[in-house]
Amino acid sequence: MTTSAYQKLEAKFRRQMAIEQASSILHWDAATMMPAGSSEGRGEQLSVLAVLAHETLTGSETADLLDEAEEATFELDDWQAANLKEMRRQWLHANAVPSELVEKMAKASNDCEIQWRQARAASDFSAVKDQMQRVLDLTIESGKAKAEAFNKSVYDALLDQYEPDGSVATIEALFSDLQSWLPKLIGDAIEKQESQPAPLPLDGDFSIENQKSLGEALMNTVGFDFNKGRLDVSAHPFCGGVPDDVRITTRYSEDDFTSALMGVLHETGHAMYEANLPSEWRYQPVGSSRGMSVHESQSLLVEMQVCRGENFLSYLAPKAKEVFHGKGNGWTGENLSQLYTKVERGFIRVEADEATYPAHVILRFELEKAMIEGDLTLSELPTAWNDRMEQLLGVTPPNDGLGCLQDIHWYSGAWGYFPTYTLGAMTAAQLFGAAKTQKAEIPSALRNGDFAPLMTWLKENVHSKASSQSSDEIVKQATGSSLTTEVFKKHLIDRYLA
Amino acid sequence: MTTSAYQKLEAKFRRQMAIEQASSILHWDAATMMPAGSSEGRGEQLSVLAVLAHETLTGSETADLLDEAEEATFELDDWQAANLKEMRRQWLHANAVPSELVEKMAKASNDCEIQWRQARAASDFSAVKDQMQRVLDLTIESGKAKAEAFNKSVYDALLDQYEPDGSVATIEALFSDLQSWLPKLIGDAIEKQESQPAPLPLDGDFSIENQKSLGEALMNTVGFDFNKGRLDVSAHPFCGGVPDDVRITTRYSEDDFTSALMGVLHETGHAMYEANLPSEWRYQPVGSSRGMSVHESQSLLVEMQVCRGENFLSYLAPKAKEVFHGKGNGWTGENLSQLYTKVERGFIRVEADEATYPAHVILRFELEKAMIEGDLTLSELPTAWNDRMEQLLGVTPPNDGLGCLQDIHWYSGAWGYFPTYTLGAMTAAQLFGAAKTQKAEIPSALRNGDFAPLMTWLKENVHSKASSQSSDEIVKQATGSSLTTEVFKKHLIDRYLA
Repeated sequence: MTTSAYQKLEAKFRRQMAIEQASSILHWDAATMMPAGSSEGRGEQLSVLAVLAHETLTGSETADLLDEAEEATFELDDWQAANLKEMRRQWLHANAVPSELVEKMAKASNDCEIQWRQARAASDFSAVKDQMQRVLDLTIESGKAKAEAFNKSVYDALLDQYEPDGSVATIEALFSDLQSWLPKLIGDAIEKQESQPAPLPLDGDFSIENQKSLGEALMNTVGFDFNKGRLDVSAHPFCGGVPDDVRITTRYSEDDFTSALMGVLHETGHAMYEANLPSEWRYQPVGSSRGMSVHESQSLLVEMQVCRGENFLSYLAPKAKEVFHGKGNGWTGENLSQLYTKVERGFIRVEADEATYPAHVILRFELEKAMIEGDLTLSELPTAWNDRMEQLLGVTPPNDGLGCLQDIHWYSGAWGYFPTYTLGAMTAAQLFGAAKTQKAEIPSALRNGDFAPLMTWLKENVHSKASSQSSDEIVKQATGSSLTTEVFKKHLIDRYLA
Repeated sequence: MTTSAYQKLEAKFRRQMAIEQASSILHWDAATMMPAGSSEGRGEQLSVLAVLAHETLTGSETADLLDEAEEATFELDDWQAANLKEMRRQWLHANAVPSELVEKMAKASNDCEIQWRQARAASDFSAVKDQMQRVLDLTIESGKAKAEAFNKSVYDALLDQYEPDGSVATIEALFSDLQSWLPKLIGDAIEKQESQPAPLPLDGDFSIENQKSLGEALMNTVGFDFNKGRLDVSAHPFCGGVPDDVRITTRYSEDDFTSALMGVLHETGHAMYEANLPSEWRYQPVGSSRGMSVHESQSLLVEMQVCRGENFLSYLAPKAKEVFHGKGNGWTGENLSQLYTKVERGFIRVEADEATYPAHVILRFELEKAMIEGDLTLSELPTAWNDRMEQLLGVTPPNDGLGCLQDIHWYSGAWGYFPTYTLGAMTAAQLFGAAKTQKAEIPSALRNGDFAPLMTWLKENVHSKASSQSSDEIVKQATGSSLTTEVFKKHLIDRYLA
């Protein structure tokens, strides 16, 4: 029996995925365990692994095998055909851009990121503007090459790196709908909260030990398997590792447990997705998680839809009170709910609540699109940012550190990423809505700390699909329709105005 | 300017070394951090990285470049020439053996190792004999291929994997000298110790926290840089990681701190060697540590020569008493010395003291050489082992679990490794002797917990040489003569009979 082109590709990608997995663990180690003085050597290791993974894709043999396999798709079952499609996507992304440009981009982003840290600390946009211009120019050059390869617009081609098959058209339709009702909803929510008595402060022993103990207990509750994963500490929380060894991180503040706890639950949502990906496709492109919007939907479903909801908070309150040796009357589901769902017009995206968060994202999406398309210069950026903040949220940042310098994305070369946050939030609402409709026992189970019915539904309808379908197909099959703002709107109204 | 063949080889080996470094951190992670359920995926990652590192060496381009570079050694300085020599050695090891044989060997060793764990637990050699025969047969096949490539005997070719340029002739001369006086020395030492009052037991709080705190303090004392390394826990202590990120491990028992503490100091000796390798040759074969005998000499110099000596123990006693909140009169240098230098005729190598240890190694060296050369069959092994134990140490293991099943080496395919332990012990004695002669301040510095004079000497005379010279050349330059048993003998007499 001869080995088909498709089978040869599977062998190649299996190797590439194993290299990526090795890199992923080394990245986790760098963020959690590695001593500070070892970063140079780690950089060398990771850059060699990146080159090796890239070479798997860019060799001429891979191109020939892809052509050959695409001539013989009749031999493939659905998953194999989807796998071949994802192989081609990865190949297009890797081969559209000449390697010199990839190198230039890596260097420019690295330089800019270093400069950005200083510029942000000094709230001085002019200090990083030239470096940012360089990153933007190279991003556009790279985006144009990808646009040609994919036969898409430049922005859509950049977006495809994070959100496969995503499009400006879809996003603009959704975001424009959001914009039509969100500002009023925010105003109404704040007004309502102000008319109510302030939540009671929480009193207890929020030692890191206690926080970790509660965090791990709740990870268990959600379904996290500690036989195939860990919880550690890092400066910037993330979900890393690999599907069979998911490594999530958090950071603790001894003054306040809420941020670390909700952070842990958020990352656990990501982790459940990774862990439930189909193991039989572990080392193939089709076995990977779908784009960033689906990934973010899983973390936000657990954190925002479930864990900041009163059902879960009623379950949490006595548990948390016990772990923290809590005193006072604040340890009730209702009071936790008030604390955990406060709406505020702030400057900083990562500190924003779920009602104001979309405004932050819409602003970034509009501005990055305009910059990519040449409709906004970097000189105009700070003013455009502040003007739009005023329009969308009614606040004007007092300086660029609280404005256009706050996020790393543009400075590190991640253009086209921002919209996935809000697509994720809306997808989370729509999936959770469908889950509750299809499985009526979910809300009462959550009230008892039983995530099994929800997780079973998510595994079946989302996690196990991996990349065998597009985000849109997954959402449509799971919920009966493509993504709309409808369920997200209903969720916000129910939680903040009811 | 054209790139020379030598320069191209440097680029290739730089990549290969970075892959090996990545693997090393992943191995550390597997032993310390990885959850149990993730071992299958880690195996996949490591095996792909091993294949990639191996491919760097086995491609036809590498062979051509080596030939070409060896034609133009006049262009190279001493370090480059030594680097080229080490490249050729690695190439010979990698290319002498056909890849099917490498794969068969990996599988056979893996199967045998699994079976061995059960056989050892059951003290049943017959349960693993067939698997061991398979490993031995493949080891001989592989050894014959290497023997031809290196123009050496089979055993010398296997030895070269662990001890480059080592030879049976040298080892037999040293070991036969050892045998002529060691049995009597052991008897005399035991007799002397039995004639003295028993050491006082140590009383204190040996919590893991306290042990770790003392271990880290002493690592600092020796010179370990925590900005480029860590101390963690694993089932089997080791020194891993990479020179710029040395990861040592230990295991704690709350009943007794001595074993973990001396283990930490032992691994710190290894770590200092790695950390002091010349950073300008970090990613080249010549920049790696010399063979296992030099490596073991560094750990044994710190542990056996220095830290079990009375100078250091006098420094340690009050420190340890304080950390452990020690009570009673046992916390003196003299009493610790009695506890830390007890000679006993035991069955188990890894529990043996420095006086009886060489007997364990001589036995294994003789038997493995006989098996490789076809002079001893596996059916004869258990009896041969027990007979030789009786002759060398005067004890007969009551079962094979305490006899020929105790060590993993033969079952996992590491033939030719054992003699390096005792070569290391003798090298440690000879180096420490020379250091004290050349730098008279070393003993008094150690009495004050100051390792700087010793470490400066070791860095200059051993660590910084890396693989630019042979073990023999390093020892000769540092001590004025090739390795002999003389200083080791003097050390044992001074410590145990004086």
